[in-house]
Amino acid sequence: MGQIIEEINLQRQPAPSLFSSIYKHKMYGRAAWPNHYITSFSFLFSETDDLPNKVQIGSNYVMSNGGGAPSSTTHLLDFLEEPIPGVGTYDDFHTIDWVREKCKDRERHRKINSKKKESAWEFTKSLYDAWSGWLVVTLTGLASGALAGLIDIVADWMNDLKEGVCLSAMWFNHEQCCWTSNETTFAERDKCPQWKSWAELILGQAEGPGSYIMNYFMYIYWALSFAFLAVCLVKVFAPYACGSGIPEIKTILSGFIIRGYLGKWTLMIKTITLVLAVASGLSLGKEGPLVHVACCCGNIFSYLFPKYSKNEAKKREVLSAASAAGVSVAFGAPIGGVLFSLEEVSYYFPLKTLWRSFFAALVAAFVLRSINPFGNSRLVLFYVEYHTPWYLFELIPFILLGVFGGLWGAFFIRANIAWCRRRKSTRFGKYPVLEVIFVAAITAVVAFPNPYTRQNTSELIKELFTDCGPLESSQLCQYRSQMNGSKAFTDNPNRPAGPGVYAAMWQLCLALIFKIIMTIFTFGLKVPSGLFIPSMAIGAIAGRIVGIAVEQLAYYHHDWFLFKEWCEVGADCITPGLYAMVGAAACLGGVTRMTVSLVVIVFELTGGLEYIVPLMAAVMTSKWVGDAFGREGIYEAHIRLNGYPFLDAKEEFTHITLAREVMRPRRSDPPLAVLTQDDLTVEELQSTINETSYNGFPVIVSKESQRLVGFALRRDITIAIENARRKQEGIMLNSRVYFTQHAPTLPADSPRPLKLRSILDMSPFTVTDHTPMEIVVDIFRKMGLRQCLVTHNGRLLGIITKKDILRHMAQMANLDPESIMFN
Amino acid sequence: MGQIIEEINLQRQPAPSLFSSIYKHKMYGRAAWPNHYITSFSFLFSETDDLPNKVQIGSNYVMSNGGGAPSSTTHLLDFLEEPIPGVGTYDDFHTIDWVREKCKDRERHRKINSKKKESAWEFTKSLYDAWSGWLVVTLTGLASGALAGLIDIVADWMNDLKEGVCLSAMWFNHEQCCWTSNETTFAERDKCPQWKSWAELILGQAEGPGSYIMNYFMYIYWALSFAFLAVCLVKVFAPYACGSGIPEIKTILSGFIIRGYLGKWTLMIKTITLVLAVASGLSLGKEGPLVHVACCCGNIFSYLFPKYSKNEAKKREVLSAASAAGVSVAFGAPIGGVLFSLEEVSYYFPLKTLWRSFFAALVAAFVLRSINPFGNSRLVLFYVEYHTPWYLFELIPFILLGVFGGLWGAFFIRANIAWCRRRKSTRFGKYPVLEVIFVAAITAVVAFPNPYTRQNTSELIKELFTDCGPLESSQLCQYRSQMNGSKAFTDNPNRPAGPGVYAAMWQLCLALIFKIIMTIFTFGLKVPSGLFIPSMAIGAIAGRIVGIAVEQLAYYHHDWFLFKEWCEVGADCITPGLYAMVGAAACLGGVTRMTVSLVVIVFELTGGLEYIVPLMAAVMTSKWVGDAFGREGIYEAHIRLNGYPFLDAKEEFTHITLAREVMRPRRSDPPLAVLTQDDLTVEELQSTINETSYNGFPVIVSKESQRLVGFALRRDITIAIENARRKQEGIMLNSRVYFTQHAPTLPADSPRPLKLRSILDMSPFTVTDHTPMEIVVDIFRKMGLRQCLVTHNGRLLGIITKKDILRHMAQMANLDPESIMFN
Repeated sequence: MGQIIEEINLQRQPAPSLFSSIYKHKMYGRAAWPNHYITSFSFLFSETDDLPNKVQIGSNYVMSNGGGAPSSTTHLLDFLEEPIPGVGTYDDFHTIDWVREKCKDRERHRKINSKKKESAWEFTKSLYDAWSGWLVVTLTGLASGALAGLIDIVADWMNDLKEGVCLSAMWFNHEQCCWTSNETTFAERDKCPQWKSWAELILGQAEGPGSYIMNYFMYIYWALSFAFLAVCLVKVFAPYACGSGIPEIKTILSGFIIRGYLGKWTLMIKTITLVLAVASGLSLGKEGPLVHVACCCGNIFSYLFPKYSKNEAKKREVLSAASAAGVSVAFGAPIGGVLFSLEEVSYYFPLKTLWRSFFAALVAAFVLRSINPFGNSRLVLFYVEYHTPWYLFELIPFILLGVFGGLWGAFFIRANIAWCRRRKSTRFGKYPVLEVIFVAAITAVVAFPNPYTRQNTSELIKELFTDCGPLESSQLCQYRSQMNGSKAFTDNPNRPAGPGVYAAMWQLCLALIFKIIMTIFTFGLKVPSGLFIPSMAIGAIAGRIVGIAVEQLAYYHHDWFLFKEWCEVGADCITPGLYAMVGAAACLGGVTRMTVSLVVIVFELTGGLEYIVPLMAAVMTSKWVGDAFGREGIYEAHIRLNGYPFLDAKEEFTHITLAREVMRPRRSDPPLAVLTQDDLTVEELQSTINETSYNGFPVIVSKESQRLVGFALRRDITIAIENARRKQEGIMLNSRVYFTQHAPTLPADSPRPLKLRSILDMSPFTVTDHTPMEIVVDIFRKMGLRQCLVTHNGRLLGIITKKDILRHMAQMANLDPESIMFN
Repeated sequence: MGQIIEEINLQRQPAPSLFSSIYKHKMYGRAAWPNHYITSFSFLFSETDDLPNKVQIGSNYVMSNGGGAPSSTTHLLDFLEEPIPGVGTYDDFHTIDWVREKCKDRERHRKINSKKKESAWEFTKSLYDAWSGWLVVTLTGLASGALAGLIDIVADWMNDLKEGVCLSAMWFNHEQCCWTSNETTFAERDKCPQWKSWAELILGQAEGPGSYIMNYFMYIYWALSFAFLAVCLVKVFAPYACGSGIPEIKTILSGFIIRGYLGKWTLMIKTITLVLAVASGLSLGKEGPLVHVACCCGNIFSYLFPKYSKNEAKKREVLSAASAAGVSVAFGAPIGGVLFSLEEVSYYFPLKTLWRSFFAALVAAFVLRSINPFGNSRLVLFYVEYHTPWYLFELIPFILLGVFGGLWGAFFIRANIAWCRRRKSTRFGKYPVLEVIFVAAITAVVAFPNPYTRQNTSELIKELFTDCGPLESSQLCQYRSQMNGSKAFTDNPNRPAGPGVYAAMWQLCLALIFKIIMTIFTFGLKVPSGLFIPSMAIGAIAGRIVGIAVEQLAYYHHDWFLFKEWCEVGADCITPGLYAMVGAAACLGGVTRMTVSLVVIVFELTGGLEYIVPLMAAVMTSKWVGDAFGREGIYEAHIRLNGYPFLDAKEEFTHITLAREVMRPRRSDPPLAVLTQDDLTVEELQSTINETSYNGFPVIVSKESQRLVGFALRRDITIAIENARRKQEGIMLNSRVYFTQHAPTLPADSPRPLKLRSILDMSPFTVTDHTPMEIVVDIFRKMGLRQCLVTHNGRLLGIITKKDILRHMAQMANLDPESIMFN
């Protein structure tokens, strides 16, 4: 078909006001076309034969593309026309269409596969394409592991900087400094001449009230400096770097676009400010943000591979793997990381992703281990090994810890969300720097006097998890000696608590209250802040207190029927460290409502199947207790607070509404904006687009029959018209737009029509108006839809978008439906 | 509305031949109703007002059920009518509709919830309902663990019975027998006076050719007896008990009904015959069948809870958890079991199931451990601990083992499938008992002379996995002594191989060839037969051989640049046991194409993250090599061989066909059998049903418009008519059938019409004819559909069933589409 192209001169769009009057005309009749907009025109039929869409049911159905054999001409896209650049991309803060993305990827894959045998170069390209998935997860794993190691080392050093400095080598932290000095014996490893506290350096004295005040002052000084630097960097360079990032990553993985959230600036600033925030002594952890950092790495590396950079669905596979790598380095738990990615953050998780996530998690873990940031060839500071079994009776305190964890979780979520809502809605939120400084100052002032709050939270957890062995010099292990020297090296048999333990109990209680209060105000500050470590610390403190209480009970009442059988005097029957671990898991479970992944993460910390049952009991109790007060975890609560369009895969939709009750238009709404398949002009189409703000328009056969043909996206239509104007000549405002295969028969003097079939989605998802919403929600979740059309007996009735569903769900839960903010 | 009921006398259906003539009439015009079939009649309008289904797009759409508020009257089912018993159940060898099942469950849940506050009894019932999920998985875990322990113990005892008997206590196996006799020292624990070989018992002599022949004879005798008993029990009592069961369980979990496959008879016979089959010395394992046994337990316990017994989708959640428990007890790997269930067998795996699967797996593991069948407080025989690290260079042999595993897997799948196909298609398959006896005889005859094939395969694997320590007395550890006595207790430094090792090498090579050949012929016999253990044994033998070869290479060429840096003389640098383990994982991976779950299972056997990288390298290589020869694992291959309608969630559909090319009716087919919403009579309906064999019929507005109203299942229509005939009076052959909300206006003398709206699915899934098949396949997979209707511009064109899709996929893969056998 030879195409004759003539010159046209099509003016730009008229002002909206004029357009809207045309639009109104169109709604109630055919609009008179204002001729003065057109200066010259031409017409052209590229295809003159008009084949009516005759469809007969069942028998003798003739396929218009000739036979049932698969051929590329039968495909969705019309290959006669070149793909229009820009079609199929998304705006910021919009929801992606998973089905379309997956089709695009398969199309790309087929193209590469068909070209493969053409030349060696094409074959290399296809190999590169096939391997790019593994390459990108390997790179992500390497980068996440390296960054995690870096963060660990620098944060450790800066944390110790608050207390003093190593004279022999400035870049050594306290522990490394003591290792290098030869004079220290094992017993007094905390005292080493090379390490100078600030008081020693400035005042020249290590003891006395003066030096205490000096150290106190320097501690606060450094804490405030770090916090100030962190918040300023975040505010100036990368506002997305604040918080834990997990709510946003969940939203992004569920198919939402937030440009720049995983970009290089966010990565850089988050890495730097995470170190500063951790070192500032605020009640926050680096584990959540590490997931964000890993996802940034995944996103950045995915730009090296067109397979991932050009496809939002494929990119999310990389991000799923990256989040597994993030948890893997945060807790040294590769399997736990994969399960975390599966259970908590991922939305679309095909089995291929499982395998790649596992690989990424392992690579990251091995890089971290070869960096060896803690000097113990372990991935985490608080790796522990217990040697004594637990007894059935102990399940009671474990379950009590679970109840505590659930209560804490529910309380924390409510209090934190209330505070964050206050911050969002009042003037208060306008001074993030001041707020951070204020919280950091209070934290530093209150934390310094108590040794358990002064130290790094990870170290506190390690100390609480660790069982009292003969080599343990901690205050927590100052039991009254009862045994002979010969028995000193047996494993911690139960003993009466000494004054050190009682003192530690008080300090731990104070630390618990302090941590509880500060964590509520800290999570949500404009600095990178994770929640895992503070939650675990709270649980570990509570657990250790309970553990020591049970231990003393067993010691003093070893003739009670409960203890009689298995807990003799001097026997090793209670492990307070295990209680701390169970408490930590319970509190983390209460806050995040994780289950399997949490148990597996903690299992990987201990490395024994033995302790899974106590963990499960506590985590289950904690989840049930927490769920009784509100089913949302902290991440879901923050997602809702921010109004992200997140359709939770876990929450069941239990109402009995039907699709027609949710669909738009409602009774009082204007009629649904639809396009007809072959009797619109470019101008009418543009006015429809300009008059409405919908993201897409159903295309129907005719206004009379209302039978559905397909669906066209606003963005695609705009781009296609723009493109046609630039490239295709003869297109004018009164050109006929058609979505059919063949151009409609037009009068002889009509301008060249514009074919838009290539942007028409001819397989839109439809449901009937009688479909229960539970099925509709299921379809949206499982297929990852952006919208779905509603029909009744084959006629188009309305449309349901993801936002409509979220609004409806909010309404059903008696929440404000307007809290859902984005598309 | 008062209902007047009059007597009618409706005759039974006329003969099909007559009906078909009426049917033909109906197709080309309205059939004349043969009046003599009716003796008396009456008519009745239950609802006289006819509300036309006026639907206007967009504006002023009036909801026929009054407003948008959710109320139970707007629900799918019509509550005015009682539910018809039997509607919503499935026939044997049919596919379930997941969407409908899930809706049913939510409906049930809502009913219980709404009644909850009525009385204490209802509240208890709702509690019981809420807890039944946990109860059923707990029971399943308990039963699976107990059965696994029982099977382990009895199989061990019977296995030793082939060699001899314990005189002091008949019920002791060899090892237990030796424990009880006080005279034995540690060094000669294999010799104990209480344990008598058959030669000793019968001939009275332990040495010499006569006793060897006697033992040989008794070994064969017992092996044949066990095999004969096993195959007879299977053949007579439970034919479903044969094989590994995993292909069928995968199919069942994907939504297929095979009645009795998981019943109590299968459970009982499978448990007994599994013990016999293992003890008979055939080249098979008990791990796969243990999954089947666990699933039987899950299925049986689910009958105690109406929530699970009455809902096929919910029952499959229990089965997923049960399969996790099965792998958990088979390999002592709870987390691996859950991942196996997720990766390999499950189809629909919501996160709730993940948590419950984990629980079931743990319960089962703990029960098994408290039974302690191996006397080592481990869950499996071949738990190992290695102490030396691996070196980067060793990745080369590990990858070579991966290549071997992949080749073995591909070869095994082809050979085994070819053999099974031969068995199915020729007369040969008619003599299963003879075949089993024959294979068992050959196995026993060849196996006895070689100590590595004579012993239990699990024990062989244990020996191959175990590193040569100072206490190891195995032939494999007979290295030439080079060291002083003082060094004897260091861990296995590399040494030159002694004659024992060389002899073992030859025997292992022969054992490898023997196992490879026998496994091909064994898997598929009519006895319970697992594939995990034989595959692992083959890999372990190959791995151990490679390991010893590398070890000797390193010993004799320790100055090569490869070994120079890390492998000095006398240093401990190569662990042949690790090679065996890597080889086992590679071979198992090649056969089953498992990835993450396999690595995690083996990781749980060793308990160290250290060795995950070699395992991953080998398993990945093995999968890639295997996939190069054919993408199917052994289970998928057997599913295809048996023609089960299994839509694999892992395999991507990459073709570019459209829905209209797959849908029925094809060009040459008779037109689609449809029902119209309000102008059919009972007789016309019945003749449509009798004339066709389809499982369901689309309901349309009218033949002219072809607009789709809903979908009605054949089984439901039959049951509903049957039910109406029995209960509703006034229904005759010429009664009008209507699927609309209100009865159509009928002439005054018409009989009472039959309302069938309650069985109409008013929300059938539809796709347009232009939908690419990749999307259709995705919808079927993710939503678990049974059929989907195809429309074009709002008009019904055809239907696609799961079987159509499977046929189409087979066609695209150049396979016989008729190999898909069930619906």
